[in-house]
Amino acid sequence: MSTVSEMAHPASNPFLQFLRKPINWFLLFIPLTVLLEHLHRMPAPVLFFSAALTIVPIAALIVASTAQLSTRTGDAIGGLLNATFGNAPELIIALVALKAGLLDMVRASLAGAILANLLMALGMAFLLGGLRFHEQRFNPAATRAYSTMMFVAAVSMTVPSAYSRAFGTTSGPIREEQMLNIGIAILLLIAYALYLLFSLKTHPHAFASVDTEGAGGLELEEHWSVARAVGTLIAASVLAAWMSEILVGAAEGTGKALGMSQVFIGIVFVAVVGGAAESGSAIVMARKNKMDLSVGICLGSCIQIALFVAPVLVIASYFIAPQPLQLAFGRAEIGALFIAVFCGALVCGDGQSNWYRGVQLMTVYAIIALMFYLIPELK
Amino acid sequence: MSTVSEMAHPASNPFLQFLRKPINWFLLFIPLTVLLEHLHRMPAPVLFFSAALTIVPIAALIVASTAQLSTRTGDAIGGLLNATFGNAPELIIALVALKAGLLDMVRASLAGAILANLLMALGMAFLLGGLRFHEQRFNPAATRAYSTMMFVAAVSMTVPSAYSRAFGTTSGPIREEQMLNIGIAILLLIAYALYLLFSLKTHPHAFASVDTEGAGGLELEEHWSVARAVGTLIAASVLAAWMSEILVGAAEGTGKALGMSQVFIGIVFVAVVGGAAESGSAIVMARKNKMDLSVGICLGSCIQIALFVAPVLVIASYFIAPQPLQLAFGRAEIGALFIAVFCGALVCGDGQSNWYRGVQLMTVYAIIALMFYLIPELK
Amino acid sequence: MSTVSEMAHPASNPFLQFLRKPINWFLLFIPLTVLLEHLHRMPAPVLFFSAALTIVPIAALIVASTAQLSTRTGDAIGGLLNATFGNAPELIIALVALKAGLLDMVRASLAGAILANLLMALGMAFLLGGLRFHEQRFNPAATRAYSTMMFVAAVSMTVPSAYSRAFGTTSGPIREEQMLNIGIAILLLIAYALYLLFSLKTHPHAFASVDTEGAGGLELEEHWSVARAVGTLIAASVLAAWMSEILVGAAEGTGKALGMSQVFIGIVFVAVVGGAAESGSAIVMARKNKMDLSVGICLGSCIQIALFVAPVLVIASYFIAPQPLQLAFGRAEIGALFIAVFCGALVCGDGQSNWYRGVQLMTVYAIIALMFYLIPELK
Repeated sequence: MSTVSEMAHPASNPFLQFLRKPINWFLLFIPLTVLLEHLHRMPAPVLFFSAALTIVPIAALIVASTAQLSTRTGDAIGGLLNATFGNAPELIIALVALKAGLLDMVRASLAGAILANLLMALGMAFLLGGLRFHEQRFNPAATRAYSTMMFVAAVSMTVPSAYSRAFGTTSGPIREEQMLNIGIAILLLIAYALYLLFSLKTHPHAFASVDTEGAGGLELEEHWSVARAVGTLIAASVLAAWMSEILVGAAEGTGKALGMSQVFIGIVFVAVVGGAAESGSAIVMARKNKMDLSVGICLGSCIQIALFVAPVLVIASYFIAPQPLQLAFGRAEIGALFIAVFCGALVCGDGQSNWYRGVQLMTVYAIIALMFYLIPELK
Repeated sequence: MSTVSEMAHPASNPFLQFLRKPINWFLLFIPLTVLLEHLHRMPAPVLFFSAALTIVPIAALIVASTAQLSTRTGDAIGGLLNATFGNAPELIIALVALKAGLLDMVRASLAGAILANLLMALGMAFLLGGLRFHEQRFNPAATRAYSTMMFVAAVSMTVPSAYSRAFGTTSGPIREEQMLNIGIAILLLIAYALYLLFSLKTHPHAFASVDTEGAGGLELEEHWSVARAVGTLIAASVLAAWMSEILVGAAEGTGKALGMSQVFIGIVFVAVVGGAAESGSAIVMARKNKMDLSVGICLGSCIQIALFVAPVLVIASYFIAPQPLQLAFGRAEIGALFIAVFCGALVCGDGQSNWYRGVQLMTVYAIIALMFYLIPELK
Repeated sequence: MSTVSEMAHPASNPFLQFLRKPINWFLLFIPLTVLLEHLHRMPAPVLFFSAALTIVPIAALIVASTAQLSTRTGDAIGGLLNATFGNAPELIIALVALKAGLLDMVRASLAGAILANLLMALGMAFLLGGLRFHEQRFNPAATRAYSTMMFVAAVSMTVPSAYSRAFGTTSGPIREEQMLNIGIAILLLIAYALYLLFSLKTHPHAFASVDTEGAGGLELEEHWSVARAVGTLIAASVLAAWMSEILVGAAEGTGKALGMSQVFIGIVFVAVVGGAAESGSAIVMARKNKMDLSVGICLGSCIQIALFVAPVLVIASYFIAPQPLQLAFGRAEIGALFIAVFCGALVCGDGQSNWYRGVQLMTVYAIIALMFYLIPELK
């Protein structure tokens, strides 16, 4: 589901190629961020936004190297690679926050990533694509499959949240609640495995592009060796983990300094940072009228987060976190999730888009973000 | 979106023409209502229903003069006029109630107007149209656009309501709540302005009629001079404000006398009175098999109320009301709103209607009205 | 809406025919169950599951004799018979539980029957049908009509539930709550009567099969005399009532013995037992690629339960139950109902199915069942 926009012209020198892409200039923020972290008197927001800006190009490198690797393997393995590493940046940030015991921020970033993809990225893709093309079309059957998956995912987050509200205690989750969360995590991973079987093996045509031009899928404009792709993937992942630690460490101080709640920081900023590379790709594809790719990136990313990243975090929390992670979202998050899912289903359901549909999605995102901004801290 | 059914035959004398339309005979209730108001011992329900009956033909005159004016201007200006004055009766009644500080009634009449249009008027149009025609068709793309707008509107009412329930205090709205309401009001007005741009300018064809017969749109059977149209519009608006004051003034007494709650009076009676003229037009169009017009009147009216009337009232409340209006609806209202929006989307989604779909919408309206009737006063 | 799969080959001796069908061998559980009941020291779960296994073939006999009767009458009367007796097993079990005053179990079995049909039976039909056929098709217009009815039904259960939560007292329902329930029951019965008029008389073509092969509808492979059909119907109904009494009587003890809540026993086991015969038919039809019949059985059965069985139980409770039945479901049941209705609408909405859609429906069922299993008893 993941993809990448390679806008560089072919050149003989890979390093020159590398420098031609403006996004890579952001990598200069890496030393800056490390420097800032060692100047202990630095205000937290400066450190936070410096780390955030650093993660964007690193995430793009992870996405790019995954895309390179997947072209070297068969379709099925390639799809599997994309499906597994496509949301690696989000997963890495969440794992770092999980290890630090910031469970509220993990939950907020999960919900926020779905909101950002489904409302903000898709809305911008529709709006900016629609400003260039009068009406754009994509495969409605694929969208229906995505919408149903998203609905299943929203249900899987609602059930433990409602359970926690009804029966949770202040002294941590009860045994039944833990069983519910683990049970749902296992069900989701099985559903995700079967979804990969369905979309890559038995029914790939159901996700086919509607127009012949876009049928060729994504074309990479340069080709990396396997060694370069694997090396980049590993190096970028390590860098992402490092920068995520700085980001997560500065989040609390940033919230206090700017008068924003933890949940708002997690649901808006952390979520947007992790998905920025993919959102950018979705918008670029929409401007090229490759709407099937654009919609596939946004919705596929939501499904990966809900059906793969979330259950992996629940299970991982038993090994790396100071206390187990429950999918116990607040009412506001759950409400926002369902609103986003229904909105997405209504807006995309007929396989057409125009600029105003983008406005509708972004209006809903703005209303939800405004609400989270204004929710008092004590919640 | 507004329209009017002119059933009079052309005649040379405008006054005779005027008298030929049965609805205008209701104007005789104006002096009766004024008389009743000065007989101070009159029971409130008599005054209430007399004023209500008076408002129906006045609202029809407002709608008619707007329609006349819009034929004299270009398409875009005409559409803008209709979009602005189409729900003038609802707006006038709500402004009068707002000035009187009856915030609960304002909210109830907003929610009630949407329920009345989406469930009652559309249901009656489907039922009565379907009894004459076996199956009726309309533009499903337009309906999808309306449904999405309605969903956005329902979200925009839910968010401040949930906020108010969670963080509201008995001593009035806190500063954050006011910021949330004003922020959402501004977002909605921007979304409405862009919606007008979309539906009148960039994508008018998306709202086109599906059958060629109805394509001609609404034909007015008489033509007024601009002076007559403007004069009628002003005179009718003044009359509407006057009668609304009587109506609103008698509402509380009527509720007490008939054992009905304020909310029920607002959500059923006041809402139906304001929209009666338009509902009538929608039914007449359905009986003529002009389903695109019929659906457009009902759903367009809902969108105007939610995206134009509601935010205007929120902003106006800071100038004319004793205390600012928050879009803080009760659970029952919000639940009813979402039910109505989903019902409308499900029933209209495929661009077909039959008599039983009308029954379904009216059944839901009846269940909701019964619930509001039986909700104890203290709420 | 009801149907039956007759897999026996034609034979001259009806008794031999009878024995050839494996399901009828389950009837041997009748004497066993009666025997077990008289051995007073028997553990409750043994008795419960023995009675449950007995009800499955009895329910199949009721469905079969109704189907036989309906072929002897005209189409309209036949449809009416099916619509009335199709869910006789569920109705009989619920009436027995109602008489015993187990109102929570009645409510749970109503909600559970809808969940079992909409998610479990339909999911298994899609999965098992999809494993044999790559893609299966059915009439999307009929599904839309079913989905809307289901939504209306879910609303009709939500409104009294929300009312009861908001205004209910511990000392039983207040007068307004009883009026609300009776009012809604009457509205639902009227809507159901009009639905029969619509689907059997004015618009039967709207429910027609999409492929010509399936157009012949259900063919019975043997033909019974009217006397045999009526006799079987009466005998099987009496047996069903008898076995239901044993089932319901053992339910409480079974819950305690197995550490399961009353609600879980009702929502999963009792619900599945009543609908097992019909669920089996739906799966058999899906394996034969007669998807219109399969979907019609599952969704039609839900509609009968919500619009016919539920209101009949509310009204009957005033005559046979120790205290009136209110449609006052818990939050978890209402949430599960809406989830099921939206899931069904999303998954079936385009008239296509494949194996993965079955997986989606069954995943949602598994999540919901897991939740009810883990809800603490005190609820």
